[in-house]
Amino acid sequence: MNVLVISAHSGDFVWRAGGALALHAARGDDVRVVCLSYGERGESPGLWRQDGMSLERVKEARRGEAEAAAKALGVAIGFMDFGDYPLRIDDEGLFRIVGEMRAARPDVLLTHVANDPWNRDHDAAREATLLARQVAQAAGHDPATPVIGAPQVLQFEPHQPERCGFSPDLLLDITPVFDRKQAAMECMGAQAHLVSYYTDLGARRGVQAVRNGGHRSIEQAEAFQRVFPTVAGTLG
Amino acid sequence: MNVLVISAHSGDFVWRAGGALALHAARGDDVRVVCLSYGERGESPGLWRQDGMSLERVKEARRGEAEAAAKALGVAIGFMDFGDYPLRIDDEGLFRIVGEMRAARPDVLLTHVANDPWNRDHDAAREATLLARQVAQAAGHDPATPVIGAPQVLQFEPHQPERCGFSPDLLLDITPVFDRKQAAMECMGAQAHLVSYYTDLGARRGVQAVRNGGHRSIEQAEAFQRVFPTVAGTLG
Amino acid sequence: MNVLVISAHSGDFVWRAGGALALHAARGDDVRVVCLSYGERGESPGLWRQDGMSLERVKEARRGEAEAAAKALGVAIGFMDFGDYPLRIDDEGLFRIVGEMRAARPDVLLTHVANDPWNRDHDAAREATLLARQVAQAAGHDPATPVIGAPQVLQFEPHQPERCGFSPDLLLDITPVFDRKQAAMECMGAQAHLVSYYTDLGARRGVQAVRNGGHRSIEQAEAFQRVFPTVAGTLG
Amino acid sequence: MNVLVISAHSGDFVWRAGGALALHAARGDDVRVVCLSYGERGESPGLWRQDGMSLERVKEARRGEAEAAAKALGVAIGFMDFGDYPLRIDDEGLFRIVGEMRAARPDVLLTHVANDPWNRDHDAAREATLLARQVAQAAGHDPATPVIGAPQVLQFEPHQPERCGFSPDLLLDITPVFDRKQAAMECMGAQAHLVSYYTDLGARRGVQAVRNGGHRSIEQAEAFQRVFPTVAGTLG
Amino acid sequence: MNVLVISAHSGDFVWRAGGALALHAARGDDVRVVCLSYGERGESPGLWRQDGMSLERVKEARRGEAEAAAKALGVAIGFMDFGDYPLRIDDEGLFRIVGEMRAARPDVLLTHVANDPWNRDHDAAREATLLARQVAQAAGHDPATPVIGAPQVLQFEPHQPERCGFSPDLLLDITPVFDRKQAAMECMGAQAHLVSYYTDLGARRGVQAVRNGGHRSIEQAEAFQRVFPTVAGTLG
Amino acid sequence: MNVLVISAHSGDFVWRAGGALALHAARGDDVRVVCLSYGERGESPGLWRQDGMSLERVKEARRGEAEAAAKALGVAIGFMDFGDYPLRIDDEGLFRIVGEMRAARPDVLLTHVANDPWNRDHDAAREATLLARQVAQAAGHDPATPVIGAPQVLQFEPHQPERCGFSPDLLLDITPVFDRKQAAMECMGAQAHLVSYYTDLGARRGVQAVRNGGHRSIEQAEAFQRVFPTVAGTLG
Repeated sequence: MNVLVISAHSGDFVWRAGGALALHAARGDDVRVVCLSYGERGESPGLWRQDGMSLERVKEARRGEAEAAAKALGVAIGFMDFGDYPLRIDDEGLFRIVGEMRAARPDVLLTHVANDPWNRDHDAAREATLLARQVAQAAGHDPATPVIGAPQVLQFEPHQPERCGFSPDLLLDITPVFDRKQAAMECMGAQAHLVSYYTDLGARRGVQAVRNGGHRSIEQAEAFQRVFPTVAGTLG
Repeated sequence: MNVLVISAHSGDFVWRAGGALALHAARGDDVRVVCLSYGERGESPGLWRQDGMSLERVKEARRGEAEAAAKALGVAIGFMDFGDYPLRIDDEGLFRIVGEMRAARPDVLLTHVANDPWNRDHDAAREATLLARQVAQAAGHDPATPVIGAPQVLQFEPHQPERCGFSPDLLLDITPVFDRKQAAMECMGAQAHLVSYYTDLGARRGVQAVRNGGHRSIEQAEAFQRVFPTVAGTLG
Repeated sequence: MNVLVISAHSGDFVWRAGGALALHAARGDDVRVVCLSYGERGESPGLWRQDGMSLERVKEARRGEAEAAAKALGVAIGFMDFGDYPLRIDDEGLFRIVGEMRAARPDVLLTHVANDPWNRDHDAAREATLLARQVAQAAGHDPATPVIGAPQVLQFEPHQPERCGFSPDLLLDITPVFDRKQAAMECMGAQAHLVSYYTDLGARRGVQAVRNGGHRSIEQAEAFQRVFPTVAGTLG
Repeated sequence: MNVLVISAHSGDFVWRAGGALALHAARGDDVRVVCLSYGERGESPGLWRQDGMSLERVKEARRGEAEAAAKALGVAIGFMDFGDYPLRIDDEGLFRIVGEMRAARPDVLLTHVANDPWNRDHDAAREATLLARQVAQAAGHDPATPVIGAPQVLQFEPHQPERCGFSPDLLLDITPVFDRKQAAMECMGAQAHLVSYYTDLGARRGVQAVRNGGHRSIEQAEAFQRVFPTVAGTLG
Repeated sequence: MNVLVISAHSGDFVWRAGGALALHAARGDDVRVVCLSYGERGESPGLWRQDGMSLERVKEARRGEAEAAAKALGVAIGFMDFGDYPLRIDDEGLFRIVGEMRAARPDVLLTHVANDPWNRDHDAAREATLLARQVAQAAGHDPATPVIGAPQVLQFEPHQPERCGFSPDLLLDITPVFDRKQAAMECMGAQAHLVSYYTDLGARRGVQAVRNGGHRSIEQAEAFQRVFPTVAGTLG
Repeated sequence: MNVLVISAHSGDFVWRAGGALALHAARGDDVRVVCLSYGERGESPGLWRQDGMSLERVKEARRGEAEAAAKALGVAIGFMDFGDYPLRIDDEGLFRIVGEMRAARPDVLLTHVANDPWNRDHDAAREATLLARQVAQAAGHDPATPVIGAPQVLQFEPHQPERCGFSPDLLLDITPVFDRKQAAMECMGAQAHLVSYYTDLGARRGVQAVRNGGHRSIEQAEAFQRVFPTVAGTLG
């Protein structure tokens, strides 16, 4: 199974989907993260408080953290460096994302929700993901490489889900790999205060997973919302 | 796997979920249909056009058709006879449904959507299903029988889905058992004009299933909408 | 054309649809109002401030006002006297509404919206209208009288539309009959302060009608929201 | 300021609004909780696991816990004993709630959300609250006691908010009284596992409060969703 | 009556609105289709499977098909050639669409829905239509040509309507001209498998039209969703 | 308290929020309006009917009106001159808005709603406001000026609110300063017909404010919809 993540900033994939990625990596699946930006302007306040900081130094630090986190999760990672706050993706950028999709041939794409009023970069990443998926399916785009199928798009849980229209329809049990998610979160020096926040959130989603019929052993879960219907051979 | 269907009228389970039921019956699962009414007043216009028809005779005819359809699908069936147009369920009726749930111990419940402006009996059946599920989970209700877990509730596709707020999130491949669904539909003498309608609908949902990543061999599908999040161990 | 109005309280039809009713009455259409209650408890504060008032005297006064208003509009009126605050409709009451529908054979039904948090009687009236419409369509209900077809249901504009989910999709030009609506509103002694309020609202909806392509001569309009799709032979 | 809480079961007010109640009690406001049921059937699984338990003994135990919790919060409490799973409120019950509203003359009402698919008792409590509020405003209902004004209705956060359509629009800082909420939660022996769950949730809502402009000292918050618009003299 | 269609790709107008266009053409109305792209990259997989295909040859083939289809429907057609997958419309392109609107002076505009996750070109076409309509109404844009009025915008049915938020509010009887739609569909060589799909869909919408009060003779219908309220002189 | 208004066209702030601005100016708060365009093309039809009009002359006239209105309200005003119909904001424009936010340090931002199908400039202004707010919060954007906090964003009432998804959650009493709003509205020569329209609307919102618990003295109100939850120390 191939999993491709389109992450607006270089931290998002850790907090919002680190467990999912570790889980599939542990299964031997091909998991790849594409960071559209480093979150260098908007998501690195701790770094900017340090003396002599520059945009390049912040990006370098953020890149190092993300690479360490990806390693902790056991997944591959790449960086587009499109800039953040605002994240802007022109057609050249779009076609690079299409190229990633054509190369990875994902069964599942992960990205952000639309309508996050706190963070429009999330909307931009989601829009680029849907548009790149569509272009990657087009026979007439770069006919030399084969088109992709119709991968599901799973949207991450945003920071304040209810006001972003996020309604979880998939609670993923990440208990078996939570140690890896924790290790990955601890790599994210610039945003250390978030580790306990996302650990608590995982516990909360875990309780809900149990309440919705999951096994009692579930202690940590991540929530996702599908864009497309699932196709299945049974109701269960 | 145990599947329990709460059908407002004695025809609904055939048109809207016959393929799903045949599929699980064919797997050896325990599938049981509970018809809350026979649809005797509102869904039997053909019978009422016959001479000398009475409410009892319509019910008898409808019961015979539903039993034949259930047999064709390979599933068990029971009748509550609560009356239709309107379908009214008092607490005694509710507790009978709770009893069915406690007995069947379903992994999945199937029923109607809410907010069908054409047919409020569908709302009544859905409301009763959710309420009965909740009561069946209560330790203090009939403590002599064990409580149930947290089965998913899958909602049928209504006749005019968009104006009922129906948004399919599960497209079920029923191609392998479509002959059984067809046989079951043909048992429903009172509503014969619907066979081709629902065959076409199944083909349409089948095309959509393929477009959403299903195998090209899918020719017939049924659409459902989940009430609760799914809990899973992988993203796929 | 036959128009049947199901009004929760005896004033609603005047404020919310008086222009529509006068318009159709003036065309020679058959227009009939059914008031489910007099609004005697909850919508007659002025009467209750008078000395020696009793429930029966309030009902009598409200009935007189509504009859005068109906006369001013040129429409027929009847009263169900189900009580208000809360309005409760049992099956006997429901079947009386069904009887009205079978007798009137409406092309259009008018009633309230759902989800009015200020006034649950409106929800009750709307629910009864949809349910009675469904029963009136049932071949097996009172087989001695003919079933009805599939009349559109138009929902009135509620007092605070946005928080009730009301989204107008029909702006009706009532300019030619606004004098009749005004005369009818002036019959409603118990709620006199509302005349200027609803005149202003009509002007506002009139401006919107012009903005949406209506003729510049429109000065007064009423807004409605359809429950069902329209069926037409042209796009216009 | 008068605060009146309509709680479906005798535990809800503690978990979902205990901080809000303690806060207003501490200000010297008049805070009163009305429990529509004890949650005796559906929300007391721990008690039912004890030997020799009966409905009456469960109710007694639950009542004791709720009274202790109310005392810890510093608020008044009453019990309607309408039964739970399902919670059913007839007109006599409704008028008792109306009587509570007429007596308390609340500036704010607190209750549950609608559309909780896990727990229809919450819907019943919310519907009764809106309907009782409307009746309590009616001049013709029990004319011997004065009508109430137009109190805001604040809806509690449900257990799985996103699938209930809950969108928080008020984050209340309960940091100054969190010790009282904790004490109250610890009174709820039957549901002890929820204390850490709701403590974590409060911390999460606290972080969100700070992110939405609240003071950095906020550590615990509760989320609510308003039914009606607020009326104010300034934008802030 | 003037009808102007803004079609994202050169096939959309045939499948989604061919009947509507033939109907108005048959009435002698002025019907004009503007194709924003040929669908050359994304909607011509059959052509791309042919040897020696190039973007220009695909566009030429698609243009020929669309012209033939327009001729079969009896309507005028023009091409903007903005490119597809992605469809991008800059201000120069926007002003060309404005020019079409100023020239055509439409009573009705037809275009796509927003929020189609499968095809963002549809969103782009819809956005351009709304924006061009607004600019065409502006006195200060190209003051040498007269502004337009306030034409209704009708949105086509998308391929998977429920997940695009499509809710049909107009079911158009196209039975009298279905032979023309069929002829037009048969011109679309590149997408031949869709003919039976859209014939079935038309039959399904036809059944729904009859169920919503349309004449029993309706066999084929097309569904649309209005953007703006309708303005009318009667309720019917 | 600092209030910053991002107005798509130079008239919007007067009609939609003039009372709010006058109210805060009268309290001694710092209120500043930023007009993204003059509405020179699309919202000045009266001016364009005059002989010899040019874009520059319309802009000059509109600027004069807006300055006079701002003076009547007692607030500061600035102009971005980005052009209207369509309003387009590139990154340079965005950063100018960010600069305004960093300079003003607003407690509250006011702007338009999303999803106004009549006027996409409103969407553009709202999107720019949310995005600029996010950039203004970013430590890495222009590190020489301090970041802002998390101001609430209040959305204006659009012209046809229900079809724009506008649901008012704040009714602001502007009675004490309505004379100033009236004076400001009268400065807007180009759109004189709107004065009575918005006076009526203010009266209507005033009646609703009273109905929702506001003081009976309220005669004029403005409606707003919040983007973010409020954070508070009490429920009231």
